[in-house]
Amino acid sequence: MSSYLDRGFTLAEFENRTARAQRVMHEMKLDAMLFTTEPNVRYFTGFQTQFWQSPTRPWFVVIPAEGKPIAVIPEIGASGMAGTWVDNIITWASPCPEDDGISLLVNVLNGLVSKYGRVGVTMGIESHLRMPINNFLALRNRVKKEFVDTSLATHELRQIKSQAEIEKTREICRITNVGFDNLPNYAQVGMSEREICKQFRIDMLQEGADECPYIISGSGADGYNSIIMGPTDRVIEKGDVLIIDTGAVRDGYFSDFDRNWAFGYASEETKSAYRATYEATTKGFEAAKPGNTTSDIYNAMWSVLEANGALGNDVGRLGHGLGMELTERPSNTATDNSVLKPGMVMTLEPGMVYASGKSMVHEENIVITEDGAEWLSRRAEAELIIIK
Amino acid sequence: MSSYLDRGFTLAEFENRTARAQRVMHEMKLDAMLFTTEPNVRYFTGFQTQFWQSPTRPWFVVIPAEGKPIAVIPEIGASGMAGTWVDNIITWASPCPEDDGISLLVNVLNGLVSKYGRVGVTMGIESHLRMPINNFLALRNRVKKEFVDTSLATHELRQIKSQAEIEKTREICRITNVGFDNLPNYAQVGMSEREICKQFRIDMLQEGADECPYIISGSGADGYNSIIMGPTDRVIEKGDVLIIDTGAVRDGYFSDFDRNWAFGYASEETKSAYRATYEATTKGFEAAKPGNTTSDIYNAMWSVLEANGALGNDVGRLGHGLGMELTERPSNTATDNSVLKPGMVMTLEPGMVYASGKSMVHEENIVITEDGAEWLSRRAEAELIIIK
Repeated sequence: MSSYLDRGFTLAEFENRTARAQRVMHEMKLDAMLFTTEPNVRYFTGFQTQFWQSPTRPWFVVIPAEGKPIAVIPEIGASGMAGTWVDNIITWASPCPEDDGISLLVNVLNGLVSKYGRVGVTMGIESHLRMPINNFLALRNRVKKEFVDTSLATHELRQIKSQAEIEKTREICRITNVGFDNLPNYAQVGMSEREICKQFRIDMLQEGADECPYIISGSGADGYNSIIMGPTDRVIEKGDVLIIDTGAVRDGYFSDFDRNWAFGYASEETKSAYRATYEATTKGFEAAKPGNTTSDIYNAMWSVLEANGALGNDVGRLGHGLGMELTERPSNTATDNSVLKPGMVMTLEPGMVYASGKSMVHEENIVITEDGAEWLSRRAEAELIIIK
Repeated sequence: MSSYLDRGFTLAEFENRTARAQRVMHEMKLDAMLFTTEPNVRYFTGFQTQFWQSPTRPWFVVIPAEGKPIAVIPEIGASGMAGTWVDNIITWASPCPEDDGISLLVNVLNGLVSKYGRVGVTMGIESHLRMPINNFLALRNRVKKEFVDTSLATHELRQIKSQAEIEKTREICRITNVGFDNLPNYAQVGMSEREICKQFRIDMLQEGADECPYIISGSGADGYNSIIMGPTDRVIEKGDVLIIDTGAVRDGYFSDFDRNWAFGYASEETKSAYRATYEATTKGFEAAKPGNTTSDIYNAMWSVLEANGALGNDVGRLGHGLGMELTERPSNTATDNSVLKPGMVMTLEPGMVYASGKSMVHEENIVITEDGAEWLSRRAEAELIIIK
C-alpha cells in the first residue's frame, strides 16, 4: 500500500488520467491530444525531470483516442521516459535545427486512426506551446487533421485532483508551515530580506521540500507595496512589516501561501488590515463548497475587504487553482464563475491596498470536498505576529 | 564602483543591450522587436522576479527602433517594473481571459513610427512564445506590420556577454565548485542520491547561490546510464559511480557543470573513460578561440572520445552556450559551425557511452577571450575521485 511519502504515482493513476482525457476527446470528437509543456507531459506520462530547465529541445506527447500516450522526444530523454508507463517512445538526435522532431510528430499524428480528423492542442486560455511557433505552424500544415483548442479542457482535467495528488499537496503544505513557524526564531531587525529568505528556504529543504522555486518577499515601514518581487538586500528595521510568499515543491506538487510579520510594533491600521484579510479567508472558506463558484469565493472575500476599507487590489484575483504549477486555473475573480467541484485544490488569497503604498495579502491552501472544503495549509494566526 | 557581488547591472548595461538590439533592427529593417519570455524581458529591462513561476499571465516588452523598452504587463507587476530603467509601463488587470493585454499590445505596435512596417518576433530556432498561440495569431492579424523571425538574432545578441555578465557567471561557478569540493566530506556508501544532492544544494545556498534549479544525478555499479534524471532514493553502494550535474543561479546567471565520483573502487575501463573525457575537455579548451567554430570544439573533443572507445553519445551535443538560461545557443555539434567570438560563455561537455548502459560525462564552463578562452569553473581532477 502506498504512503503519501512515496514518490510518483501508481500505474492506475496514469491509466485514470489518460482515460479521463480520452472521455473528453470522445465528447469533443478528437482523434488525439498533443502536449508540449512540462506539467502536461508529466501529468500523462509521469516523466519527471529538472531537464526542462534547458529550453533547447522540444518534447511532445500525443494521447491517442485509445491506448497509452506516445512520446516523441529527444534521444537524451529516452532512458528516463523508458522508466515511465509509456512504451511507445520515438526519439531523434536533438538539437537538430533542420527538423527538431516535427517530421516524426507529423508521422505519428497522420498515422493515427482518423475517426474525426481532429487533434486537440492547447492553443487558448492560459496556455503556451513550448516549441517554436514557426515549427507549430509547419506542423499544422503537414498534419491532415484540424487542430482544435483544448486548453480549457486540459485545465479542467488537471484541476480535479486525485486523492494521491491531494496528499502530495498536503505534505508540501505541512513542510511550508514548518518553515514559516520557525521564522520568528531567527528573523530579527538588522537582517536583510535575503538573509531571512535564505534560512526559510533551507528550513523547508531540511524538512523535506525538493526545491523552493518561489520565495518572494516585500517589506517596508508599517507595510509593503509589492508581493511579487524580492527578496532584496533591504535590511529590516523596527516597525517594518514583512511578507514572504512561497511556492515550495515536493515530488512535483506545489504549496502556495504566505505569512506576514511585524517587527517591534505595527500601527492599528495595519493590524486591522491583517484582521480583515484573515476574516476574508474565513468567509472565503465558508463559500468554498461544491456547486458554488470561484466568484462566490471572490465575493465572500471582497465584501469583507471592502467593508474594512480596501482601496483596491492590484493582484487581479483573490486566489487560484494550485497543483503541479504554482498557479493553475481557475481564478477567484468577480467574473470567473467556475463551478467548484470536489478535488479542486485552490488558494484563498485575499489582498487589498489599505493605504497609499501599503498592501496586505494573506493566503491559504484548501481542497474542495464533497460537502465543503478542507484546509491544506495550517491557518495563520488570527492577529498579526509581532516579532519583538 | 560596482563589484561582481553587486546585484543587477548599471544603467549603461541596459542602454548598451538596447542599442545593440536597435543596430540589429536597423540592419534587419525592423520598427520594433517583441519579447514574451523571462530571459528576454529581463535582458532588456532588468525586471527580475520569481513570479514567472506563475504561468497565468502574459508579459510583453517592445523594443522600438529608437528609445527605451516599452512594457505592456499585468498590473501586479507595475511596481516591480517601475524599479527598472523602463518608464513607459502600460498595464491591465490580468488575468482577463477576454483580452489579456492583446489590445494594448496592438495599440503599442500600431502606434510606433512605421519606417519599415516590420516587427521582429522570436518565432524560430530554439524559441517559444509565452502566450496563447491563438492570442498571438490574433495579434498578428491586428497589427499592421509584417512579423519577422528574430530568434537567431536574439540568441546572437544575448550570447555575447558583457564583462559584468561574465563576472556573474564566474561567481556562481565559484560557488558551484565549493559545493562540489565539499561533497567527498559527507557523501558515502549508504546515502541515497537524494540525500547527497540535498546537502550539495544547501552547501551552494550557504555559499551564496540564490537557487539551484537544476541538480540531477545518476548512479550505478561502476557507471550510470542517464544524465538528465534524478536524484532518486537509490542508495549508493560500494563500487558505484555517481554523477551530479548542476545549474545553480546567482543574480539570474547560471553555472552548468558536473562532477563524477566512485565509491570504494572503479574498474580500469571506467577510470579510463573518465580520463578520456578529461582529456577531451583539454582539447576542447584548446580549440575554443575566436575565429574557430563550435564544430571545431566538437571535433577536437569527439576525436579524443572516439580514440578512447566511445560507442556513441546520446546527449546530442558536447556543450552549449550558458548565461541567463541553463542552456543557450549555440551548440557544440558536428554541424553547428557557429563562429566563436570574445564574450561567449560556453560549456565544454564531452560525454560518451563507453560500455553497455554506461555513460561518462564531464563538463566545464569557459568564456571566449580575445585570444583564446578562460576557465570559469575550476577544472575537475584529472583522475576519477575515489571516495573511500
